[in-house]
Amino acid sequence: MQEKVLELLESRKLSELKVMLSEENPTDIVSYLENIPQNELILVFRILPKELAAETFVEMDSDMQMLLISAFSDKELRDVLSELFVDDAVDIIEEMPASVAKRIIRQADAQTRKDINLILAYPDDSAGSIMTTEYIALKRDMTVESAFVKIRSVGLDKETIYTCYVTDSRRRLIGVVTAKDLLLSAPEQTIGEIMEENVIFSFTTDDKEDVIQTFEKYDMLALPVVDTENRLIGIITVDDIIDVIQEENTEDIEKMAAISPSDKTYLKTGIFETVKSRIPWLVILMLSCTFTGWIIGAFESALAVQTALIAFIPMIMNTGGNSGSQTSVTVIRALSLGDIAFKDVFKVFFKEFRVSLICGAILSVTNYLKILLLDILILGENITNTVALVVSFTIFATVIFAKIVGCLLPIGAKKIGLDPAVMASPFITTLVDAVSLLIYFTIASALLSL
Amino acid sequence: MQEKVLELLESRKLSELKVMLSEENPTDIVSYLENIPQNELILVFRILPKELAAETFVEMDSDMQMLLISAFSDKELRDVLSELFVDDAVDIIEEMPASVAKRIIRQADAQTRKDINLILAYPDDSAGSIMTTEYIALKRDMTVESAFVKIRSVGLDKETIYTCYVTDSRRRLIGVVTAKDLLLSAPEQTIGEIMEENVIFSFTTDDKEDVIQTFEKYDMLALPVVDTENRLIGIITVDDIIDVIQEENTEDIEKMAAISPSDKTYLKTGIFETVKSRIPWLVILMLSCTFTGWIIGAFESALAVQTALIAFIPMIMNTGGNSGSQTSVTVIRALSLGDIAFKDVFKVFFKEFRVSLICGAILSVTNYLKILLLDILILGENITNTVALVVSFTIFATVIFAKIVGCLLPIGAKKIGLDPAVMASPFITTLVDAVSLLIYFTIASALLSL
Repeated sequence: MQEKVLELLESRKLSELKVMLSEENPTDIVSYLENIPQNELILVFRILPKELAAETFVEMDSDMQMLLISAFSDKELRDVLSELFVDDAVDIIEEMPASVAKRIIRQADAQTRKDINLILAYPDDSAGSIMTTEYIALKRDMTVESAFVKIRSVGLDKETIYTCYVTDSRRRLIGVVTAKDLLLSAPEQTIGEIMEENVIFSFTTDDKEDVIQTFEKYDMLALPVVDTENRLIGIITVDDIIDVIQEENTEDIEKMAAISPSDKTYLKTGIFETVKSRIPWLVILMLSCTFTGWIIGAFESALAVQTALIAFIPMIMNTGGNSGSQTSVTVIRALSLGDIAFKDVFKVFFKEFRVSLICGAILSVTNYLKILLLDILILGENITNTVALVVSFTIFATVIFAKIVGCLLPIGAKKIGLDPAVMASPFITTLVDAVSLLIYFTIASALLSL
Repeated sequence: MQEKVLELLESRKLSELKVMLSEENPTDIVSYLENIPQNELILVFRILPKELAAETFVEMDSDMQMLLISAFSDKELRDVLSELFVDDAVDIIEEMPASVAKRIIRQADAQTRKDINLILAYPDDSAGSIMTTEYIALKRDMTVESAFVKIRSVGLDKETIYTCYVTDSRRRLIGVVTAKDLLLSAPEQTIGEIMEENVIFSFTTDDKEDVIQTFEKYDMLALPVVDTENRLIGIITVDDIIDVIQEENTEDIEKMAAISPSDKTYLKTGIFETVKSRIPWLVILMLSCTFTGWIIGAFESALAVQTALIAFIPMIMNTGGNSGSQTSVTVIRALSLGDIAFKDVFKVFFKEFRVSLICGAILSVTNYLKILLLDILILGENITNTVALVVSFTIFATVIFAKIVGCLLPIGAKKIGLDPAVMASPFITTLVDAVSLLIYFTIASALLSL
């Protein structure tokens, strides 16, 4: 398809191109337009029907949008803006450099400008920042028939027509009516009769993660967002929430791997940006290994005598790290899905403690047998039974410590308002490394009288 | 609320309880019913209006559902089944022991039984397994008015009425019409005139991850699922896709942390089940550390002479592991979001190579300065400049190796049909550990002539 677009463009068969693209989906059109030079891009954009052009614009990445905006006349920019939903306009503005953002806001009409500034004012991770202000509001005493008249007249410019909100004279949210309810009711019934009064809603200041959990829990197509006085301010639609879910998941996964989250896709992120998102944690974690270095340093002379102990250091550290990250990652995910909360801390602790006893026992026995059978019996290595016991005891204690730390740190972080996701593998590994070495050398000193 | 339910139940004020619960949301009703004994549970369930009862049943976890099913008469089971959507019935059946599953299927009517068996037959990770068969099908020559008549007559039993599918005489999918299109069109227009012919669809055999990507890409409320002959078999609705997204994300995160995925929530998973999902990888990873042990063992006598080298082992392994897991996790996520594919392997490799050069350089210089200034100058430790250089060179080389392995392994795994997520931190850490020690001792042997 992309070749065909380029071909028609080069041979300047624009009316043919127009007919072809008009049949296409905005998302697909964007993919045909990748890597087209700016002057050709604006040419294609100008031949698209107005609404399709705006929908296509929304699907573009910010680089392509910026290229177009700089080629737009003020009138063209106004035309595109007038077709956009406010939340999409806000998303675009947020990605633009300040000068471009200002130009966009200047070209919006008064009402849109007000709405854009309203949404921009909410904190980044709040429900308010992801809502849109284009919803259908009905009144309690309207009939179903007049509701349809209203939907037909304003529906084209609303983000969804499938969920309508019922507000009172002071714009307070008093009910919700779905298009399904309307279609299945008699024309003369009033909205007040058929509306659902038990409305599920979010506050503008609620956290995005809570909004996600509400969508998951109640299977909704749109969620109304109200202010502290229960006035309807905006709605969040399910298609936007899917993007938010994926963003939040990517962010959590990145944090768990000690990466500062970025909102660009992998191939769009430059080398230096990638380095910037990765190097701080690498440096911090590397420097914090100074402690493990000191611990080993303190036992250096003992290790020089019992050199067999050295070979087990990586295994002990790894097993501790893996045990801890299994627990921390599970707990972080359960916190983020709302499966557990701070009040469950004792339940979680007790569960992880029992799991760690069993895992620790299995691992330490496996390890003891492995040293006895493989290392000593088959390979004939010079390892005493006492060393094998020291290593096995250490594994048992380390697994217990790792799993307890792995569950308590994320829950504690959440409690004091930190993001639990940073308490994942890399952080816990570094902590567990140091403690597991301390356990190792303490047990070794006791049993081997070093 | 839960107390109030219990109170009304104990004082047997059932009609009052019925009125109260009828106003409530199914999801909330389930939360009030937690920890209620079986005989009380069935009592509450019996007073709920039929449709609400079925909706509440769907929201319960499988334990509560099983409790109810065992208390149901065959007629009650049939009544609930007749109110369920087929995809929900399938979800329930999949969680039940075989005997209960059989009883459910036996009580379903012939058509439902056929649909249930159809969906059950698709592989677990396919589009077919998450679709439902209750959609609204329209014909090309129907008018908008008659479409509304059809929607009003069958709409109540369809999973969505907002997207209708146009099929030909052989049930092949030829178009799609939204309720919005219908509402905004004149009653006498035909479906053929207003339908969108460029339909986005999935095949029954498509992977769930591809379905997720399609929803994300095209912002849809429902996706039609067709067989190889383009016949419409079912649809997937957006509320179900949100659950699938969260499940897939949890699964990926668990795999990345070396946990076998489970589909129960954290607190619902028993101790032994948790152990079972964690211990295999812990044992495998622990045993694979045998190699690192051997590498250290081979250099034991050299380490006994140059004991200063031992203290840096944890730091080198950690830094390598963190560098590798940053890359692998980023690449795994990009693969799962569809941001990169196998064809991008050279782009990804080249990017990670450049990133690793910069990260490696920064880390090794930082480390060199830290040893010189902190360890030697301030703490007066007995570390020679050559040792500091050995450690710094090792870090540089290890970071490059870790990042390259971290990007190539997940892409390679995907290519040969394995899940890239298992190529994350724990696996890569173990590999990077062994190689980093080899690098360390090779450089040390050369520079320190061990």
